[in-house]
Amino acid sequence: MNAKPLHLDENRLFPSDPVQRGIARRLYAQVARLPIVSPHGHTDPAWFAEDAPFADATELLLVPDHYVFRMLYSQGVDLDALGIPRADGSRAAVDPRAAWRAFAEHYHLFRGTPSSMWLNHVFVDVFGLDVRLDAGSADRYYDTITAALQTPAFRPRALFERFNIEVIATTESPLDELRHHAAIRDSGWKGRVITAYRPDPVVDPEHERFPDALRRFGELTGEDVHDWDGYLRAHRQRRAFFASMGATSTDHGHPSCATADLPPAQARALFAKIVRGDFDAAEAELFRAQVLTEMAAMSLDDGLVMQIHPGCFRNHNRGLFARYGRDKGADIPLRTEYVQALKPLLDRFGNEPAFKLILFTLDESTYSRELAPLAGHYPSLLLGPAWWFHDAPEGMWRFREQTLSSAGFYNTVGFNDDTRAFLSIPARHDVARRIDCAVLAKLVAEHRLDEDEAAEVAVDLAYRLPKRAYRL
Amino acid sequence: MNAKPLHLDENRLFPSDPVQRGIARRLYAQVARLPIVSPHGHTDPAWFAEDAPFADATELLLVPDHYVFRMLYSQGVDLDALGIPRADGSRAAVDPRAAWRAFAEHYHLFRGTPSSMWLNHVFVDVFGLDVRLDAGSADRYYDTITAALQTPAFRPRALFERFNIEVIATTESPLDELRHHAAIRDSGWKGRVITAYRPDPVVDPEHERFPDALRRFGELTGEDVHDWDGYLRAHRQRRAFFASMGATSTDHGHPSCATADLPPAQARALFAKIVRGDFDAAEAELFRAQVLTEMAAMSLDDGLVMQIHPGCFRNHNRGLFARYGRDKGADIPLRTEYVQALKPLLDRFGNEPAFKLILFTLDESTYSRELAPLAGHYPSLLLGPAWWFHDAPEGMWRFREQTLSSAGFYNTVGFNDDTRAFLSIPARHDVARRIDCAVLAKLVAEHRLDEDEAAEVAVDLAYRLPKRAYRL
Amino acid sequence: MNAKPLHLDENRLFPSDPVQRGIARRLYAQVARLPIVSPHGHTDPAWFAEDAPFADATELLLVPDHYVFRMLYSQGVDLDALGIPRADGSRAAVDPRAAWRAFAEHYHLFRGTPSSMWLNHVFVDVFGLDVRLDAGSADRYYDTITAALQTPAFRPRALFERFNIEVIATTESPLDELRHHAAIRDSGWKGRVITAYRPDPVVDPEHERFPDALRRFGELTGEDVHDWDGYLRAHRQRRAFFASMGATSTDHGHPSCATADLPPAQARALFAKIVRGDFDAAEAELFRAQVLTEMAAMSLDDGLVMQIHPGCFRNHNRGLFARYGRDKGADIPLRTEYVQALKPLLDRFGNEPAFKLILFTLDESTYSRELAPLAGHYPSLLLGPAWWFHDAPEGMWRFREQTLSSAGFYNTVGFNDDTRAFLSIPARHDVARRIDCAVLAKLVAEHRLDEDEAAEVAVDLAYRLPKRAYRL
Repeated sequence: MNAKPLHLDENRLFPSDPVQRGIARRLYAQVARLPIVSPHGHTDPAWFAEDAPFADATELLLVPDHYVFRMLYSQGVDLDALGIPRADGSRAAVDPRAAWRAFAEHYHLFRGTPSSMWLNHVFVDVFGLDVRLDAGSADRYYDTITAALQTPAFRPRALFERFNIEVIATTESPLDELRHHAAIRDSGWKGRVITAYRPDPVVDPEHERFPDALRRFGELTGEDVHDWDGYLRAHRQRRAFFASMGATSTDHGHPSCATADLPPAQARALFAKIVRGDFDAAEAELFRAQVLTEMAAMSLDDGLVMQIHPGCFRNHNRGLFARYGRDKGADIPLRTEYVQALKPLLDRFGNEPAFKLILFTLDESTYSRELAPLAGHYPSLLLGPAWWFHDAPEGMWRFREQTLSSAGFYNTVGFNDDTRAFLSIPARHDVARRIDCAVLAKLVAEHRLDEDEAAEVAVDLAYRLPKRAYRL
Repeated sequence: MNAKPLHLDENRLFPSDPVQRGIARRLYAQVARLPIVSPHGHTDPAWFAEDAPFADATELLLVPDHYVFRMLYSQGVDLDALGIPRADGSRAAVDPRAAWRAFAEHYHLFRGTPSSMWLNHVFVDVFGLDVRLDAGSADRYYDTITAALQTPAFRPRALFERFNIEVIATTESPLDELRHHAAIRDSGWKGRVITAYRPDPVVDPEHERFPDALRRFGELTGEDVHDWDGYLRAHRQRRAFFASMGATSTDHGHPSCATADLPPAQARALFAKIVRGDFDAAEAELFRAQVLTEMAAMSLDDGLVMQIHPGCFRNHNRGLFARYGRDKGADIPLRTEYVQALKPLLDRFGNEPAFKLILFTLDESTYSRELAPLAGHYPSLLLGPAWWFHDAPEGMWRFREQTLSSAGFYNTVGFNDDTRAFLSIPARHDVARRIDCAVLAKLVAEHRLDEDEAAEVAVDLAYRLPKRAYRL
Repeated sequence: MNAKPLHLDENRLFPSDPVQRGIARRLYAQVARLPIVSPHGHTDPAWFAEDAPFADATELLLVPDHYVFRMLYSQGVDLDALGIPRADGSRAAVDPRAAWRAFAEHYHLFRGTPSSMWLNHVFVDVFGLDVRLDAGSADRYYDTITAALQTPAFRPRALFERFNIEVIATTESPLDELRHHAAIRDSGWKGRVITAYRPDPVVDPEHERFPDALRRFGELTGEDVHDWDGYLRAHRQRRAFFASMGATSTDHGHPSCATADLPPAQARALFAKIVRGDFDAAEAELFRAQVLTEMAAMSLDDGLVMQIHPGCFRNHNRGLFARYGRDKGADIPLRTEYVQALKPLLDRFGNEPAFKLILFTLDESTYSRELAPLAGHYPSLLLGPAWWFHDAPEGMWRFREQTLSSAGFYNTVGFNDDTRAFLSIPARHDVARRIDCAVLAKLVAEHRLDEDEAAEVAVDLAYRLPKRAYRL
């Protein structure tokens, strides 16, 4: 097999129509080198605290990327053959090079997907590779990447700086003591790595470890978290601690977007049932719904911007979950309703100018029907970008084309990379900037916007809006 | 701040691809100057009856346009600062010029939205403005527009004629005595302003003023409207009166598209509960559903074309509703189902060639799944155009691309402007004509239609189909 | 009326942008003449068994095509006037030429629809017509087509060979004795016509003839099909027979995609109620759901690939159904849910590499939200192509644009024509190949894929993937 050349075309993702391409290129020139603002994601703060080298190509690029191994799995590649850790912590005795080869042999599966765009960007731009990944080039890739990772320039902090990241937020449970964030702060390194408050483990009573999490929540805070008022105080305390460690936001991953506004006595009684483990699915849902409204109340007080990431059926694959545990590419979007679901919360806080709630969805049918009309009216609502299964070029186009007329550009918050694949962060922001420039170029080419206006919007989307929305 | 030039490009909204643009231009040339047929909208008949001058820029363009002030409100502009009337009829003591300045300062929020297209069209084409609206040009705008409004050429009837409106329909409640329509008719003015029968106030028992409306309905008609048969007779009487004042259609704004076909005894019993105020939400829904089928029966008799505009959660913002009342930009679309919902009505009237029902939606996911397949089969069904939140260029493209294959062009009814923003009517029809020409140009460019066929379709969509569908 | 010329442009369906068009043409050149693999459809095996000439233009092109007569019906053309058979087997005494004229006079209704593309392809490519169909050319069409059909070159087998069909699957009920398939096999003709197992008549207890079908199922198999175990054995027996006649797949047309995995005792008890006719709608649904899982279990054993075509409200038009019976263009798509619905089946078989389930939908909102994420994870799942109301160019674009990022190309199965309109099969495959080439050309033009990769994908989609997915 002859190696095929690989390069990143400077016009990638721009329309091929020369008028639109020309405009897109000019707009992109104004945003291409702006610093990266990454207000929501899942990188591991230990990387920046310890600044240890990444192990090898497989550990860095394959094992942590569920976008990648879910596609391989869908075409019959065993997770053990890729060295994916099992639920019990064990791993198949697989040579990382062999795992990489299995990946390389199946790389054609990613044709046209965002993963291939992100990975090719990393291969070319971070590692200087210039041939396409396939069975024939697998070893060359593995060796090149693994060797580079041993050099100082490829340590996490060096990459952070090379990537021109102005600020990055990680996401932690209230049970996290934020030692890595403290270590980063104490190290004197100037990279800005902040946390975000994601209380799901102490909010979702259907999570298998909820009772343990709740107990630990009490230990950490010294509050009686088995009592409703103590539970709320514990949240306030941890939120304050997170804020002191740089957090500017909270994040909530719920099966639906349901909110509730129960009278205190009813909330207290519901919590008592939750704590006793004496609840059904509807009560669990109502409890999560009530907590969202409580979180909004706290956000109004402490200024943390609230995010809701609803609508995912977690761990849909029963057999895979038993063997490999959570986060193994088996999460599937659900139809999601916002208009009725958010009303209790919005009835209380929707008109508060100081409260900000950023909404996400995995259900694109809600963009034009529910989310854009809501965000185009309520002062407290903003729309997060195309998320997860939808953060491909096509999904980003749909996001803009389906939210623009009712929400405009200015009720959106720019891009989130939302990733644990650290090396892909510049690639992901680059894709988002290119698509936004392409969207704007079409508007300019069709005389709906002047180019100077489009240039201002491009910079707003790439840089100003995320800083403003997330109070960074 | 230097004023930026503002103009309307002759190629706006056409694809930038030269082949498609060329075709679109040729098609558009055949429809650009056709008279405006506006079969459904919300202009105030008093304007045409009294022909009084509009007060100023703010009263004309800002205060009545909920598309505009909802966007401003979403970004923190207080409705009082814009002079929006409150529920109690009072208004903040705001200088209209100051309100206009607040609008101008936030005009960038509308970038890419249909409001900016419509407003710019009005600014250039109606008022001859040639600089972009922003903080720097706010006063120039305010003065130019307000001065023009004092001149005869800017009176409602003069604008009506200048806009080349062949016919316009307003929308009135059965309780309306249609005095303005009578005055127009008696004035000798030749402008054709007709009404449409919108019985929601006497059909929706959940409306806060339903009992009063029902009582007034009885007074006006002399029927015992608290009895089911009398209630139906009252509708027939008012429909006949509306028809005598030019109405060719009825319109129904319901939360869902539910229809019912109850046996008469059951309908009578249900109405008795409704009248007593002794009903739950399901009964209110069933009542509205039953009335739709009764309206269809009457349409078959009196020839009024029926329209259903379903699927809106009205007055979603509790606090805003308490302070400012209805129609303040807080209506939000809901997921809407048609296939089961319409079956009772269609089982009775779906195959009647003389009955016509025009369906609208705020839920675009129903275009290809439900509405186009229904309209592409039932002789009585037609599809209304992209509506409300979706009447932007993107929404119009989606409407065509998602209904074309199952419903074709000929089960659609051309454009509705559906607006109370009188000055924007030519702009809105122009946008619709341009988009339809662009859609057709793509089909021609991809050799799916010959250009002579496309030209015929373009004229049908702009002029012939609305006249035929609405029996104008 | 002057006849308008009709021709098939060689660039039809390709983007007009010259860069994309150039790429699309090169890709298409590699797939244009590949043999047709038609793994799922509804042609009549009697045609190939008997090889009798088709009667006339009306019988061949109009009467069997519900896409065509539903559109005519929607615009007021009576089905009797087209000679459509009634439920009682009678037909209006309509001259086929007069029916054809009625069709021709309304041919403009199909502008922009896939029917017009398919029909024009047939007119030009199969019958050599070179003027547009309209009232003026109706007789010329009728005579040309009807005369051609009397010649040997237009017999079914000759057309099959001319169309370069490598294999075609028909669809039969378990009650079918497959005599036509046996006759084809015994005839020595080399055309590969296989069957597929569609057990709906003995699976849907709400079908009006279910009790009869069940009784006949027992007679054919000699099993006690009124007992659950005997019923399952009867399926296994008929599946084996179908496989022996070439079947490689089963197909299931259910109102929803619900699956169930009941304990055997519960399944047995449910079946007893079904057999007694003592069931409600929920039990009928549960029974169908349970049968799907049983079918999956059998597929794992006998290797037949499973297909589910869910989500259609059959015979929506009550009056039309009473008069004309099933399959008269009155089937309407329903909102369809997959994530919860498929879980019972997937919990048992989703990770079995030897089990293959091909999913279809009439609800496009599930493409990006449910179907692509499911197929991009489960090894047993594949996505069928855009189906029925959605197999137009626009629908095919949406299918690719909404499934690509999560499922890639390789979790899809290429094209199904799914038609009983035999003559349109080359046209339908041609449209699908052109659209896939256009989709790929856009990716290449925007530098997301190299052209050599796109060429490989194009051939995979047109030829290799259907053969692999359907085990042909």
